[in-house]
Amino acid sequence: MSTLNVHFLPSLVAAEDLVGATVVVIDVLRATTTITYALAAGASAVIPCLDVGDALRIKASCPAGTVVLGGERGGKRIEGFDLGNSPAEYTPETVGGRVVVFTTTNGTRAIEHCRLATRVLLGAFVNLSAVSRAVSDDENVHLLCAGTRGKFTREDVLLAGAIGVRMARDEAGTPSANWRPAPKFNEQARIAAGHWLDLVDAGGAMPARGRLIWELRDSLGGRDLVELGELGFDADIEAAAETDRFDVVPCWDRDSGAIRAR
Amino acid sequence: MSTLNVHFLPSLVAAEDLVGATVVVIDVLRATTTITYALAAGASAVIPCLDVGDALRIKASCPAGTVVLGGERGGKRIEGFDLGNSPAEYTPETVGGRVVVFTTTNGTRAIEHCRLATRVLLGAFVNLSAVSRAVSDDENVHLLCAGTRGKFTREDVLLAGAIGVRMARDEAGTPSANWRPAPKFNEQARIAAGHWLDLVDAGGAMPARGRLIWELRDSLGGRDLVELGELGFDADIEAAAETDRFDVVPCWDRDSGAIRAR
Repeated sequence: MSTLNVHFLPSLVAAEDLVGATVVVIDVLRATTTITYALAAGASAVIPCLDVGDALRIKASCPAGTVVLGGERGGKRIEGFDLGNSPAEYTPETVGGRVVVFTTTNGTRAIEHCRLATRVLLGAFVNLSAVSRAVSDDENVHLLCAGTRGKFTREDVLLAGAIGVRMARDEAGTPSANWRPAPKFNEQARIAAGHWLDLVDAGGAMPARGRLIWELRDSLGGRDLVELGELGFDADIEAAAETDRFDVVPCWDRDSGAIRAR
Repeated sequence: MSTLNVHFLPSLVAAEDLVGATVVVIDVLRATTTITYALAAGASAVIPCLDVGDALRIKASCPAGTVVLGGERGGKRIEGFDLGNSPAEYTPETVGGRVVVFTTTNGTRAIEHCRLATRVLLGAFVNLSAVSRAVSDDENVHLLCAGTRGKFTREDVLLAGAIGVRMARDEAGTPSANWRPAPKFNEQARIAAGHWLDLVDAGGAMPARGRLIWELRDSLGGRDLVELGELGFDADIEAAAETDRFDVVPCWDRDSGAIRAR
């Protein structure tokens, strides 16, 4: 049986407490969603980068055409970058066979917070089943929500709850009506699972796609995006709600600094 | 329409951010429950006290028979104190007409964190309807969960969710099946409400008393109590689950330092 510890913000767990653990980093809107799209589109690797200057230097040091710069500041594409942080920008045409150097506000920092963990995977609704399966045999699993601007954001908590429910279900084999969190869930894992189950139709079906989109749009991260008011951000929310679109689990290798499909 | 901000721990909100607000302090297991029992039993006031030495000094300075010392450290009655932190100890015989000087690990600190707020009320399942009504006309309401040992504890989050759902329902007048958090709920208020609703039977009835007891016993605070293993702590959990037993809303007056029934 696995222990499952959910953290609603990186600041709620010390990096040292992740030693030896498997961590799933969650930033549904939009970093972990977009990185999953990028790898599914055939990017050979994604290099997360805290600093815009570092990203530009990496590109300058590589042969022309091999590196694509992606990411955002304040939600918007960075000047001089090839791509923003919208999942739909990451297609076989734009990133296939290339390395994406990627920097975002919250997600990149959350990944960096896992530098002492044994395994670091990236989770999103678009790879919910794949990432849940990938951690199901691990003994010590943490789900790390990136949050937004240092605050709780509900789209990340909902995904943590969805992964938690899947882990408990696989383990206990009980029907969802009798679902009970495993004793080794921490309180945040139980709260997240309860919130997720409130969304799920009786019987445990994935909530209707429309309902999930509604919830993502109405979360703090979603409202931030909607308020940016630019054409296309609403499409980002819809892209993030494409549950199980991909069978790809992005995995961060601390030594090389690269995220690759597992 | 009210804004509702839930904080899962006192450390998640600065004392300065409570200026001008109504705050409901929540420590279901057991401080805010026990204080409500004490006032309902006819205690003239409860004086929360951070320090055991201060409590002893207050008693020594008052006429014999007018002050009762109550509270806990590590869950257990303090040496030299009259009462512990079990609701059932607070009866008309033990506290009627007397002042209770009260010190506990988490609850007292959470009350102290509200020193800049305009109104400070205490909430528990035993006064859920009364406290929900008491704040329903206020513009700026915060629900402050005490937590346990600096960690999230689910019994407090569940009560915050229950109060939130009542505030939203009163406001919108919609049946629970269509319940939606008000736009002015923060993310923690929405998460708490979602978790609470997962417990509530379809139709919005209070969950069966047995279910609520199960949840309280299985929370971090509940498990701490159960692990203490002493006779009577299980009765404390049952006493805390007596939803709406009292129509009493404890109200802390910062200037006098006393909590009185509102």
